[in-house]
Amino acid sequence: MLCGACAAFALQQKLRRIRRELDKAVAQRDSEHSGRLAMQRELRAVMASKLAQDDALFYAPIGTISSCFKRCVGTPRQGHLAPRTRAVLQLKRSAISPDSLDGLNKFSHVWVFFVFHLNNNQRWTRGLTGGGGTGDDAAALRKVAGTFPAKVTPPFLKRKVGLFATRSPHRPNNIGLSLCRIDRVDMAGLAIHLRGIDLVHGTPVLDIKPFVPAYDAVTPAHVAPWVESSLQHNRAVLWEPGAQEQVTALAAALHLYKDEPQEAIAAIAEALEVDIRSAFMTKKAAGQKGGGSIKGSSSSGILLFDTLAVHWATQGGDFNSVSVSRVELAEGADAEDDDVSEEALQEDA
Amino acid sequence: MLCGACAAFALQQKLRRIRRELDKAVAQRDSEHSGRLAMQRELRAVMASKLAQDDALFYAPIGTISSCFKRCVGTPRQGHLAPRTRAVLQLKRSAISPDSLDGLNKFSHVWVFFVFHLNNNQRWTRGLTGGGGTGDDAAALRKVAGTFPAKVTPPFLKRKVGLFATRSPHRPNNIGLSLCRIDRVDMAGLAIHLRGIDLVHGTPVLDIKPFVPAYDAVTPAHVAPWVESSLQHNRAVLWEPGAQEQVTALAAALHLYKDEPQEAIAAIAEALEVDIRSAFMTKKAAGQKGGGSIKGSSSSGILLFDTLAVHWATQGGDFNSVSVSRVELAEGADAEDDDVSEEALQEDA
Repeated sequence: MLCGACAAFALQQKLRRIRRELDKAVAQRDSEHSGRLAMQRELRAVMASKLAQDDALFYAPIGTISSCFKRCVGTPRQGHLAPRTRAVLQLKRSAISPDSLDGLNKFSHVWVFFVFHLNNNQRWTRGLTGGGGTGDDAAALRKVAGTFPAKVTPPFLKRKVGLFATRSPHRPNNIGLSLCRIDRVDMAGLAIHLRGIDLVHGTPVLDIKPFVPAYDAVTPAHVAPWVESSLQHNRAVLWEPGAQEQVTALAAALHLYKDEPQEAIAAIAEALEVDIRSAFMTKKAAGQKGGGSIKGSSSSGILLFDTLAVHWATQGGDFNSVSVSRVELAEGADAEDDDVSEEALQEDA
Repeated sequence: MLCGACAAFALQQKLRRIRRELDKAVAQRDSEHSGRLAMQRELRAVMASKLAQDDALFYAPIGTISSCFKRCVGTPRQGHLAPRTRAVLQLKRSAISPDSLDGLNKFSHVWVFFVFHLNNNQRWTRGLTGGGGTGDDAAALRKVAGTFPAKVTPPFLKRKVGLFATRSPHRPNNIGLSLCRIDRVDMAGLAIHLRGIDLVHGTPVLDIKPFVPAYDAVTPAHVAPWVESSLQHNRAVLWEPGAQEQVTALAAALHLYKDEPQEAIAAIAEALEVDIRSAFMTKKAAGQKGGGSIKGSSSSGILLFDTLAVHWATQGGDFNSVSVSRVELAEGADAEDDDVSEEALQEDA
């Protein structure tokens, strides 16, 4: 047995050790506590952002468009104004059963509900959705709500009109509607081959519904004068010597028009004849606000069509010089497409 | 100074106390630790659900429909088949500027993009979005994806066809499209008064776009035979003696048809003439699967129209007995509407 002093010393040693343990445990406890509080705060912020979106709706694309139009610029404003244009809607294998397409081939036309995915306002929304977002999500939501204009300038009209009196892509909910001709329904491949399209490559699709004229084509109907005048406007397209032969020479490398150069030529002409965006761009360029995809002259540019770069120049609204070269566009090159479309959006906004 | 034994005793007491403190601190630390882990897990689950929805899109309604149709049952499948039906689209003051409606009155018709908000699959999505959701959100998402049928039975067709060959509300993305006549645009009131509607009361609206026949009415177009045969089917409507007088007596209490009993009577007849849901219900009821809103006989029911309850009974597909009584429906009674629509959905599914 130890003497009292020795026992006391040993105890003091023990006490010191346990005190250190206690200090450590308390420090750990405090650290865990503040960690838990931080997690709770973060969770609350995330959940609050969900609650703030109480009336928000989640949609997920059912598929994606593979289109002859690689950029916004040059894509016709309505598809069947350019009936030979082509696209394929590839549905998601993970989400959609081939059975869901059974009987669709009995219809000649289909409504395609798509996402104007290259819009700036959409970028905001995506940032809010996918991002880490510990910030003030409610404020961000308000910003999203503020990114669409109350008024826009329709083509061939000098003044602005209300957004909802137009089909501008810059809408509160960036949903587009396109009436397309069904070329072929590939049930096994979960793909719908479409003609007469106004869809840019990579467009996400939310829904398709069969076109029923008895539901969708009321008569009589009237439209605003500015729409009527825009419909009357068709441009002449003059190909440069050798340009069409160039398309023929590149026909084997075409994707949606592989070995069909005449169809490609006709579709390009259709797109140029009805293209209103370029007219708008030209008007803006004339007003010293040009730039972006307008290269050099204020009335020339490039239409990316299938695997072709179609160089065009306008005079008096008509396309008086159209030439063609081949471009390499990787099918999945989204980032690059995005960059290109940024330019386009600046023009388009 | 204490003796060694006394000092040792005091130290032991102290040691015991500090040990207890240590045990407590460790217990707290462990508790905080597991609490933090739980929070982290929860946060990860919530964030994972966001990441799982990387391609998901957020939309928020721009407004809500106030309709003469208070339930799914009896709402016409396409609005302009019943041109005198009425609704008001009330836009959100917090999100929409009156300017955005400028010029819309130059168009006779408008596309209304709406949400089939009474669908079961929508409920799932809402549960996932707004709810607390500590569960396996990714699995829940897969369930959402699984809630739409690959095939459905269109009216007047005995067999099933692919969902995308129909306009069934039970879609992967529950977006509906309706072509409505513009009755009046109330810019100051941020309201659009519509006619020829197939929209149930409380329907959230995602977008409106002006109708442009040159874009939206392609010819020639063909549709599936089962749609054509459904279009040929129109029912006779026979009012019971005194029923129309009853509508007139209740005209002051009508909401969208206030003091316009003749318009209300005509609109009710239009809705009954083209109503296909009840035919479907009747078919189902005949197959011993009836119930829900079908009261008593397998071929009778109630159409809630404005502030009226329209009692109907069919014979051979025609409405041979239509009578009317007044119902009190609070404008904002969503919960009650929901309950009612549960029944309707059971019929409709």
